[in-house]
Amino acid sequence: MSTDVARKFAAELVGTAFLVMAVIGSGIAATRLSPDDVGLQLLENSLITGAALVALILALQPVSAAFNPVVTLVERSLGLIGTRDAVALVTAQVAGGFLGAVVANLMFELDAISIASTDRSSSGHWLGEVVATFGLVLVIFGCVRSQRSDTVAFAVGGYITAAYWFTSSTSFANPAVTVARMFSDTFAGIEPASVPMFIVMQLVGGALALAAVRLLFPSANPIPEESR
Amino acid sequence: MSTDVARKFAAELVGTAFLVMAVIGSGIAATRLSPDDVGLQLLENSLITGAALVALILALQPVSAAFNPVVTLVERSLGLIGTRDAVALVTAQVAGGFLGAVVANLMFELDAISIASTDRSSSGHWLGEVVATFGLVLVIFGCVRSQRSDTVAFAVGGYITAAYWFTSSTSFANPAVTVARMFSDTFAGIEPASVPMFIVMQLVGGALALAAVRLLFPSANPIPEESR
Amino acid sequence: MSTDVARKFAAELVGTAFLVMAVIGSGIAATRLSPDDVGLQLLENSLITGAALVALILALQPVSAAFNPVVTLVERSLGLIGTRDAVALVTAQVAGGFLGAVVANLMFELDAISIASTDRSSSGHWLGEVVATFGLVLVIFGCVRSQRSDTVAFAVGGYITAAYWFTSSTSFANPAVTVARMFSDTFAGIEPASVPMFIVMQLVGGALALAAVRLLFPSANPIPEESR
Amino acid sequence: MSTDVARKFAAELVGTAFLVMAVIGSGIAATRLSPDDVGLQLLENSLITGAALVALILALQPVSAAFNPVVTLVERSLGLIGTRDAVALVTAQVAGGFLGAVVANLMFELDAISIASTDRSSSGHWLGEVVATFGLVLVIFGCVRSQRSDTVAFAVGGYITAAYWFTSSTSFANPAVTVARMFSDTFAGIEPASVPMFIVMQLVGGALALAAVRLLFPSANPIPEESR
Repeated sequence: MSTDVARKFAAELVGTAFLVMAVIGSGIAATRLSPDDVGLQLLENSLITGAALVALILALQPVSAAFNPVVTLVERSLGLIGTRDAVALVTAQVAGGFLGAVVANLMFELDAISIASTDRSSSGHWLGEVVATFGLVLVIFGCVRSQRSDTVAFAVGGYITAAYWFTSSTSFANPAVTVARMFSDTFAGIEPASVPMFIVMQLVGGALALAAVRLLFPSANPIPEESR
Repeated sequence: MSTDVARKFAAELVGTAFLVMAVIGSGIAATRLSPDDVGLQLLENSLITGAALVALILALQPVSAAFNPVVTLVERSLGLIGTRDAVALVTAQVAGGFLGAVVANLMFELDAISIASTDRSSSGHWLGEVVATFGLVLVIFGCVRSQRSDTVAFAVGGYITAAYWFTSSTSFANPAVTVARMFSDTFAGIEPASVPMFIVMQLVGGALALAAVRLLFPSANPIPEESR
Repeated sequence: MSTDVARKFAAELVGTAFLVMAVIGSGIAATRLSPDDVGLQLLENSLITGAALVALILALQPVSAAFNPVVTLVERSLGLIGTRDAVALVTAQVAGGFLGAVVANLMFELDAISIASTDRSSSGHWLGEVVATFGLVLVIFGCVRSQRSDTVAFAVGGYITAAYWFTSSTSFANPAVTVARMFSDTFAGIEPASVPMFIVMQLVGGALALAAVRLLFPSANPIPEESR
Repeated sequence: MSTDVARKFAAELVGTAFLVMAVIGSGIAATRLSPDDVGLQLLENSLITGAALVALILALQPVSAAFNPVVTLVERSLGLIGTRDAVALVTAQVAGGFLGAVVANLMFELDAISIASTDRSSSGHWLGEVVATFGLVLVIFGCVRSQRSDTVAFAVGGYITAAYWFTSSTSFANPAVTVARMFSDTFAGIEPASVPMFIVMQLVGGALALAAVRLLFPSANPIPEESR
C-alpha cells in the first residue's frame, strides 16, 4: 500500500467511524433524553447525522470521504479509482464502521458489542433502500461530475437528513454503516437477518443511479459554465 | 427532442419526483411518529423539505432544477428558455410529481394512489399562496440575475422551510407539487376541489414577482461587483 | 430619488416585509400548532427567522439587504452610504415592516392590525437587546470589512437563530422590526410601552459594536489574504 | 503586545464570550421554556451552539477565531503561531469565557456568578471528551491544511451540533468553555470537581488528533487540486 493509499485508508477509517458514532450515539442519546416521542428521536437522529456528514466531508474530502462502499463502487465504475484502491477503501469503511459502533457503545457505558434485534424487513423498507441509495448516488455524482465537488458536503448532509424521513427505511443507504449498525442493540440497530436484503437493495439503487448519472451527466462538465 | 432537452427533461422528472417524495413521505412519517403534536409534524416536514431542496438543486442545477412550472414560466418570460423547452420541462415536472407521490405511498405501504381529502380553501390560504410564490420567485431570480446561481440552493432551501411556517397555506407555491399532493390522502395532501384556486394564486404571485424582479434587477448584473 | 436609490428602497421595503412576515407569521403558526410547549414554539420561530434571513439576504444583497435601521446607521457612520440614502432606506424598512405585519395578520385571518399587549421591560431584556445588537453588527461588519460579503447571509441567519435563545429578550435587535411587532397581538408582539427602551438599547449596542468593528477591522481587509 | 496581537486578543475575547453566552444562555432558556423534555432542551442547546459558531467563525476568522485553547495549542505545535501569541490568545479565551458566563447569568436575571453543581465524571464522559476533542481538531485542521479555511465555520458548526449528541459528555471539547461553565449553576454547568479530568481528556484528544492531522495532511495541500 503506497503512502497515498494509506492516507486514503486512514481517512475512510476515521471518517466512517465518526459517521457511525454520530448515527448510533445520537440514537442512544435520543431514546434516553426524549423517551416518549419517537418523532423527536428521529428528528434528533437525522439532524445530527446530517450535521456530522457536513463536517466530516468538508474535513476529509481532500484525502478521501466516501465512507460508503456503494459510492466507492460507483467511483470504480466511472474509472475514478482503481480496483486495488477500491478494495482498500471498502475495507477501511467496514473496519471503521465497526470501530465506530464499539466506541459509541462504550461512550454511553454499554457493552462494547451487542447484537441488534430490530427487525427491518418489509417491502416498504426494501423499496426505501433502493430509493434512498439511488438518490444519494445521484446527489453526490451530480455535484462531482459538474466540477463542483465543494458542494458535496452540503448536498449529502441535506439529502441524508431528508431521506431519514422520506424513505420508510430511514435511509441506511450504505452497506458499511448497515453492517456496523448490527453491533449496537439500540435505536439505530438492525438485526443481522435484515442486513443482506438491505445491502442487495442498496446495490440495486446504486446501479440504477449509475445509469442515471451517465445519462444526466455524460461527461465531467456537461453544460458550459456560461449557459448555466 | 434534442439530447440536451432530453437530459433537462430527465433532471426535472427525477428532481420533482424526489421533491414530492420528500414532501409527502416526511409528512407520512411525521404523523406516524409524532402523532400528538401538529407543530412538531410541520417542523419535521418543513426542515426535511428544505434539506431535500438544498441537495436536489445542488446536484441537478447544472442540468435543470426548476422543479416548478411557475419558475419555468418566469424563465420563459425572461427569455432564458424557449417555448418548446418550457412545455417539455413543465410536462416533466407534472409527471415527476405524480411519480413521486406514488413512490412515497408505496414506500410507506399505502395504496399507490389515494385521493386527498384535506380542504385547503380560505381567503387566508389564497393570500398565503400569492405571498409564498411571490417570495419564491423573487428569491430565485434575485440570486440568478445577480450572477450568483450557486446560491440558489441555499436560498430556496431556507425560503421554503420558512414559508411553510409564515404563510398560512404552508407554502405549496408550485403547481406541479400541488397536483401531485392530490394523490396521497396523508399529511401533505390537498383535496382536488382546493387545487384550482391554489394554482391560480400561484400564477398571480409569480406574475407579480416577475414585475418585481424586473424592477429590482433590471439587467443580469445590476450593480458592479466592486461596489457591493 | 435616483433609479438606483429607488431600487434600494424597494429592496429594503420588500425584504423587511418578508422578514417581519417570517417573524410574526411563524410565531402565530407556532402558538396554534404547538400550543402546549413554549420551547418548541421558540425553536420553530427562531429556525424560521434564521432560514428566512439566509434566503432574503442572498436574494437581495446585490441591491440592498440591511432590513435594519441600526445596520444602515452603521453603514452611514462608516461612510458606505450617504445621509439621504440612509434616510430613504430606514423609511423603507419601517414601512416594509409595517406592511409585513399587516400581511401576516391577514394571512392568518386576523384583523389587519392589532396592538400587541406583551410586556417586555426588565433589566434582563434591556441588557439582552444591547448584547443582541452588538453581536449582530459585529457579525455583519466582520464579514463585510474582510471582503467576504458573500458570507453575511449565513452569518446573520446563524446569529439570529442563536440570539433568539441566548439573549433573554429573544433578540429583536432591529428598530424597524420592533416597531412592526407592535402591530400584531400575537406570539412575536411587543406592547408599545416597551418599544422605546428596546430601541434605545439597540442603538447603544450598535454604537458599541461600531467601536469594536473599528478596533478589530481597522481597514477593509486588515489581514493579508496569504496569512489567514 | 503589538497592535496585531491586541486585535487577535480582542477577537478571541469577544468571540469566546459570545460562544459561552450561546452555550449557557440557550441552556437556561431551554430549561425554562421546555421544562418537561430533556431531549428537546439538548436539541435547542446544540442547534443554537452550532448556529452561533457558524456566525462567530465567519465574522472573526480574518482576525482570530479559535475560541479554544486546544486549537491554539495545536496551531502552536504546527508552527502557525508563536509561543507568546499562543499565551495571549489562551488568556483571552479564558477571560472571554468567564465574561460570557457572567453576561449570560445577568441577561436571565440570575446572580452574576453561581458555582455549578452538575457532576460530570464517569468513564463514559471521559472517553466522550477524548473523542469529541479528537474529532473537533481533526475537522478544523482538515479544512485548514487543505487550503479551505473558508469551510471551517460550517464544518465546526455542524460538528459541534452533532457531537453534543453523539458523545455522552455532550462534547465540551474546549478547556476555556469548560472553565466558564463552572460559573453558572444551570443546564450547561459543570461542577468544579469534574473540570480537571475534562481538561486532561481534551488535551489527550487534541494530542491524538495532532498526530492524525500530521498523518492525513502531511503538508498544507497534500493532494493536487486537479486530482480531487
